[in-house]
Amino acid sequence: MPATKPEQKPRLVVLGSGWGACRLLKDIDTRLYDVICVSPRNHMVFTPLLASTCVGTLEFRSVAEPVRSIQPALSLLPDSYYFLARCTDINTDQHEVHCEALQEDIDDGKGEGGNKFSVAYDKLVIATGAEASTFGITGVHEHALFLRDVKNAMDIRTKLLLNLMKCEIPGTSMEEKARLLHCVVVGGGPTGVEFSGELSDFIRHDVHHKFAHVKDLIHVTLIEANEILSSFDVRLREYAVNQLTKTGVKLVRGMVKEVLPEKLLLTDGTEVPYGLLVWSTGVGPSPFVRNLPFEKSPGGRIGVDETLKVPGVEDVYAIGDCSGYLERTNKTVLPALAQVAERQGKYVAKALNKMAKAGEGHAKAHITPADPFVYRHLGSMATVGRYKALVDLRESNKSRGLSMKGFLSWIVWRSAYLTRVISWRNRLYVAVNWATTFLFGRDISRF
Amino acid sequence: MPATKPEQKPRLVVLGSGWGACRLLKDIDTRLYDVICVSPRNHMVFTPLLASTCVGTLEFRSVAEPVRSIQPALSLLPDSYYFLARCTDINTDQHEVHCEALQEDIDDGKGEGGNKFSVAYDKLVIATGAEASTFGITGVHEHALFLRDVKNAMDIRTKLLLNLMKCEIPGTSMEEKARLLHCVVVGGGPTGVEFSGELSDFIRHDVHHKFAHVKDLIHVTLIEANEILSSFDVRLREYAVNQLTKTGVKLVRGMVKEVLPEKLLLTDGTEVPYGLLVWSTGVGPSPFVRNLPFEKSPGGRIGVDETLKVPGVEDVYAIGDCSGYLERTNKTVLPALAQVAERQGKYVAKALNKMAKAGEGHAKAHITPADPFVYRHLGSMATVGRYKALVDLRESNKSRGLSMKGFLSWIVWRSAYLTRVISWRNRLYVAVNWATTFLFGRDISRF
Repeated sequence: MPATKPEQKPRLVVLGSGWGACRLLKDIDTRLYDVICVSPRNHMVFTPLLASTCVGTLEFRSVAEPVRSIQPALSLLPDSYYFLARCTDINTDQHEVHCEALQEDIDDGKGEGGNKFSVAYDKLVIATGAEASTFGITGVHEHALFLRDVKNAMDIRTKLLLNLMKCEIPGTSMEEKARLLHCVVVGGGPTGVEFSGELSDFIRHDVHHKFAHVKDLIHVTLIEANEILSSFDVRLREYAVNQLTKTGVKLVRGMVKEVLPEKLLLTDGTEVPYGLLVWSTGVGPSPFVRNLPFEKSPGGRIGVDETLKVPGVEDVYAIGDCSGYLERTNKTVLPALAQVAERQGKYVAKALNKMAKAGEGHAKAHITPADPFVYRHLGSMATVGRYKALVDLRESNKSRGLSMKGFLSWIVWRSAYLTRVISWRNRLYVAVNWATTFLFGRDISRF
Repeated sequence: MPATKPEQKPRLVVLGSGWGACRLLKDIDTRLYDVICVSPRNHMVFTPLLASTCVGTLEFRSVAEPVRSIQPALSLLPDSYYFLARCTDINTDQHEVHCEALQEDIDDGKGEGGNKFSVAYDKLVIATGAEASTFGITGVHEHALFLRDVKNAMDIRTKLLLNLMKCEIPGTSMEEKARLLHCVVVGGGPTGVEFSGELSDFIRHDVHHKFAHVKDLIHVTLIEANEILSSFDVRLREYAVNQLTKTGVKLVRGMVKEVLPEKLLLTDGTEVPYGLLVWSTGVGPSPFVRNLPFEKSPGGRIGVDETLKVPGVEDVYAIGDCSGYLERTNKTVLPALAQVAERQGKYVAKALNKMAKAGEGHAKAHITPADPFVYRHLGSMATVGRYKALVDLRESNKSRGLSMKGFLSWIVWRSAYLTRVISWRNRLYVAVNWATTFLFGRDISRF
């Protein structure tokens, strides 16, 4: 797609379809811009609820929102598009992005590439996110499952149900059964803790009558090198430890050295056999971000200034997990959280709308300096199993403020998510899913 | 698992988890029998609604029912089990079935086998179903998609959405776009007709605003060698032809000669390029059934007598699509329909319960002769797109009786299925799915 002409609407290209990209797509004024979204995923994942889909508390589709529903103009306007493709390179001098269309079976980033094409931009927003970090530990990519995408959640669910059913096959040794039903979670952040909690709920409330033959063999172990939920208030952390232990989750302080097909090795020499291994030790920069010729922030993200612009090049912004403040801004890099990305998407959309109104929408226009982006932390939430949650409303790690735990905060947790799930369709589905899980238990069919 | 002792409960082994097997599992008295179900699929598929899941009218999980929910004793009783495995061989002299557990990634029947094990039975019911028939046409298995299982429906959905998105990629030629968006259905039975109808609904009501850039390029062609819906009343057939044509489905009379990766060849020499090819030309005996050393019915199914027993061997019954009356019974083989299988499951469950009560539950017991199975056709139904359906309540092809078409019969169609979807959970889901599709349109996220 060639560059726009001055008499045409300026073209905004957005790379990605996560929290940052989708909030931006939602808020951008499509009367001012033609919008192109390039992403290998045609939907946004409501990540905080992804853990619940693995054990059947929620349906997969309840936590996914098509980008075309978030921004209908992508389908309806003649010059706005969503492309199922990944960006491979950016030519900032020519103001264009080089992309590769997705073919079947290469959604995992491997395999032969599809059609290559280029799109010229007037403004570019990079919101491609990060990828799961493995700290270079061998075997993680081969044997562990991540929890970042709907496909990951489907794989975890399939594996869990397969292992449960394998255990019932006659001739399986007790040792093999114990291994198959040992679910190991590495990483004690909110995702790891919530998944452990959901898993132990599933075991206590569904496995016990749906897989009664093997119910006493299934166990959950959560491995974390430091403290679990380290960003939360100390009292909440203690509460989480107590709750998890009470519901049968074994907490192990340790560091993983190597992952083998059926066991993992800790640095202290312990061998841990597993049937299901879920890896959630945070995120790091993706190869695409690492290869971009831009200056980097501490941690290797795309470096941005206080207005989230990439300095040194024109008309390029970066938001969400793929971006971080440059060291010379004297601001600390913000955490890789949905709320950070979403707030940044909102901020950049507003800035871009303002530019277009001021006649600065086209490439290489003079830009009126904008007010810097200011992040105010709204608090953190995590569930720790049935009817229990943590809500930490302190503004930062060191400051004082409200923190809650237990049933009431679980109500807050559910309500907060129900009001945030983007479409009414999915709000309805999440509510129906929760109600049916409550009434009938979790679904255990495996496709 | 060794043979049961006379003082133990007799053991019933059921092969399969389709309509026949599940009705039998539901009706069997688990106080009288220990039950073992062996099937590579841990859920029953509500097949009549499967076509709707491909285009997102219904969720996949709404049409699947775990066998453990249908018969909770499979999980709860100490000697009743569901095994995720396939039966490879039957030793009728020893009264045992040989099975192979499913490993990951071999659900498609290929690949290395899993653990092998044997289960002794007192009574055996074979209900393994049939497989899609391809008439030996080359390329069908490689390039066409079937519509028999939830996985098939997922594949169709993924392909359809992928093709829609590929068409928007810059640089795609008009010819390639037309090919990608040509959906070809081979086979004009109820499944083929319903899928064509759903597809044309999806195109007219969802593609038109969600994929507006390519909306005029997508077409559906239904290829049938004879007449569509040949088992239905002639007036209903004409109505179906009119409805389908009106909604944009092109009907082609023709026979497929060969299927190539991007086009198919008809016997008259026509080349038909396609982007999505769905094959639904009926079913035939599976390799497992073909290899069984039993006498066969016309059409190659397992031959049974009037009480659905396999003659010549003891304690073996066969029901559903895998079985048919032996020629010497002078009865015609019943059609491969859900209602036939279900009624047979009910009949055999009743007969087995009666035997156990009479002390004839164990292997090689003397069996009191039972009344023969009598099939009464309850009528056929099919939708032909939005708010239109056919209901044929005649008892057979030649007899007279009630037949209806149009909106009223669509209401009958929906209500009939809503009352038949097995669990309350899935009834609720189907109702919610229909309501949300009506309100918000179909979901287009692709995982």
